[in-house]
Amino acid sequence: MSKKFDLLIAAGEKSALMRYATAFATPDDYLYFRSDEEAGMIVSPLEYGRALSEKRPDVTLYGYDDFPSAADHSLVSLALALARSRNITEFRVPADFPLLMADRLRAAGLRVTPDSGSFFPEREFKREDEIREITQALRLAEDAVRAACRVIAESTVAADRTLCYEGETLTSEKLRGIIDLVLVAGGAQPTGTIAAGGLQSAEPHNPGSGPLYAGTPIVMDVFPRLASSGYWGDLTRTVFKTPPPDRVLAAYRAVREARERCKAMLRPGVIPARVHEEAVRILTEAGFHTGREGDRDFGFFHGLGHGVGLEIHEAPRLAPRATSPLQGGEVVTVEPGLYYPEWGGIRLEDLVVIRPDGAECLTSLEDIAVID
Amino acid sequence: MSKKFDLLIAAGEKSALMRYATAFATPDDYLYFRSDEEAGMIVSPLEYGRALSEKRPDVTLYGYDDFPSAADHSLVSLALALARSRNITEFRVPADFPLLMADRLRAAGLRVTPDSGSFFPEREFKREDEIREITQALRLAEDAVRAACRVIAESTVAADRTLCYEGETLTSEKLRGIIDLVLVAGGAQPTGTIAAGGLQSAEPHNPGSGPLYAGTPIVMDVFPRLASSGYWGDLTRTVFKTPPPDRVLAAYRAVREARERCKAMLRPGVIPARVHEEAVRILTEAGFHTGREGDRDFGFFHGLGHGVGLEIHEAPRLAPRATSPLQGGEVVTVEPGLYYPEWGGIRLEDLVVIRPDGAECLTSLEDIAVID
Repeated sequence: MSKKFDLLIAAGEKSALMRYATAFATPDDYLYFRSDEEAGMIVSPLEYGRALSEKRPDVTLYGYDDFPSAADHSLVSLALALARSRNITEFRVPADFPLLMADRLRAAGLRVTPDSGSFFPEREFKREDEIREITQALRLAEDAVRAACRVIAESTVAADRTLCYEGETLTSEKLRGIIDLVLVAGGAQPTGTIAAGGLQSAEPHNPGSGPLYAGTPIVMDVFPRLASSGYWGDLTRTVFKTPPPDRVLAAYRAVREARERCKAMLRPGVIPARVHEEAVRILTEAGFHTGREGDRDFGFFHGLGHGVGLEIHEAPRLAPRATSPLQGGEVVTVEPGLYYPEWGGIRLEDLVVIRPDGAECLTSLEDIAVID
Repeated sequence: MSKKFDLLIAAGEKSALMRYATAFATPDDYLYFRSDEEAGMIVSPLEYGRALSEKRPDVTLYGYDDFPSAADHSLVSLALALARSRNITEFRVPADFPLLMADRLRAAGLRVTPDSGSFFPEREFKREDEIREITQALRLAEDAVRAACRVIAESTVAADRTLCYEGETLTSEKLRGIIDLVLVAGGAQPTGTIAAGGLQSAEPHNPGSGPLYAGTPIVMDVFPRLASSGYWGDLTRTVFKTPPPDRVLAAYRAVREARERCKAMLRPGVIPARVHEEAVRILTEAGFHTGREGDRDFGFFHGLGHGVGLEIHEAPRLAPRATSPLQGGEVVTVEPGLYYPEWGGIRLEDLVVIRPDGAECLTSLEDIAVID
């Protein structure tokens, strides 16, 4: 008779699934298993004491001594000992389960079935305590962007148009440092803060380097992860020190218009792809086209948004191929952008939760645009 | 005829192998492939521009347009299109290659062979430029611990033995914040800084929480990752505000003695397990035994050290089962510890590189012990 268990082998600090299942973060891999009857985790002696106090109460903690037949204490041996102890014949595992372990479990006669979905589909729909954690991370991002805007406000513009703060050139590196200090002081881990100016801002993922200039976009994309719980926030603002050319300001307004109208569309039953298409339509109608020249894309060439939770990018996506309707409870970014190699890029990103009657905006920071 | 390529599908920010192969960090997965003749990477339009300027020069950059048969742009389709374009019959992949992708590639008729080793075994032996990056991260950790020690020095001891800094109780959280601010200001990502005091320090991985006390151990384990290159540093110091009981000071001295004598043993040809055993012997002879009571270990119950590079824990290990001799060029921690539930723990960790004539210590920070 077949008996199937869920199995995770992962490090709680790296795996959102593991953190979701046990709430216990570790630098090293450990085991989690679940059936209809029980949920358990197996950790090394090094982690046992801390696991006992930090794990979710509904997960039973086991040590290596509970599986004495796994004499070498390897994760595969522990999984095999677990299977023997429960007469397990099949493990359901996540899509990214490590191949070598799967091959070894299969060689020992077990079925190992990778889930083609998100393994814990309920992760897509946030509990109120999760929304609180995400909002807390978002507030930190807002504080950090505010601190950065104050520095830009206090900067002067040198003859060569570079920004100058406290007697020194204001660089992307310095602005990122200011942002990241606020995040760390608030108990979050900054990982890839973007503070990109000028033409660098035409590349959505360029973190930015070198001097910042007046009259060109400064894109700040800030996504802190709370050290305590592992939840992320996500926020992007684009600002200008002194007004940019009219064409750039028109792009800013089009992006803001797209963001606001898309947010207003979001509710249970809506198809994300339709919302993405609406953003494209609004931007195109405003005169900002999307396309490709040589090997570079221009216009609006990334998805409109993505889920945020224990991962910075998770389900659902607001993107051209996202055809499953929203159900309510999702926390997603809404972040249209426009990018042109000639003058740079604009991105404005809010975070919303899908409620029965529409999107509730979690972001409280205003749009700042021109700082004079 | 069989034709075999190496294949990675991973995010450069998360995968040390990918970072090693291409030097290009991304939040999202992309492809890397290598044969005797060529090395290439396939990235999305979103990453193309940045990849062009940041990737290693010896890796050829491809976009999705170069593989038009992968119409859905999924990573599996791209890997299949790559295989068709080069008549590849087998992919060699890392042990942690995602199972679902492997199953899909296998279903399409390809052999997918997980490597049971470290995939790029050359990663274990550091180039001088890698040693420089690791040392730079280590210097930041040293600056951070120095800053923390200054705060402890400037703290007063309240009647209840708690430390008091600038009129407030000094907590693990505050001390960790001081450490992490130094790391961030220096361009590094703090991830799980340990600043654990009193009985919490008896758990090697306890990050610490709540007030810190005089006369008991304060363990600071600091492992920053440089944002620019991805390399880690690792440092642990244990300090006391006012002298601890004699027994605890004796443990401190035994740990320091073990660290120094083990460092002096390290050189090419030495078996790591023998060095670990020597640490156990030194600690035991000093009167500090290792064992287990109930479900808690006490004494010295973790490995003596581990490799450090693009991962904070990587090969080689200095541990009881590590029986392959050192070869030279490895960067490893030497970090004996003693942990007792009655009074807490001591850990002292240096970082060394194995040179032809012995271990060169990369750590420059002194042992501080008692801060009065």
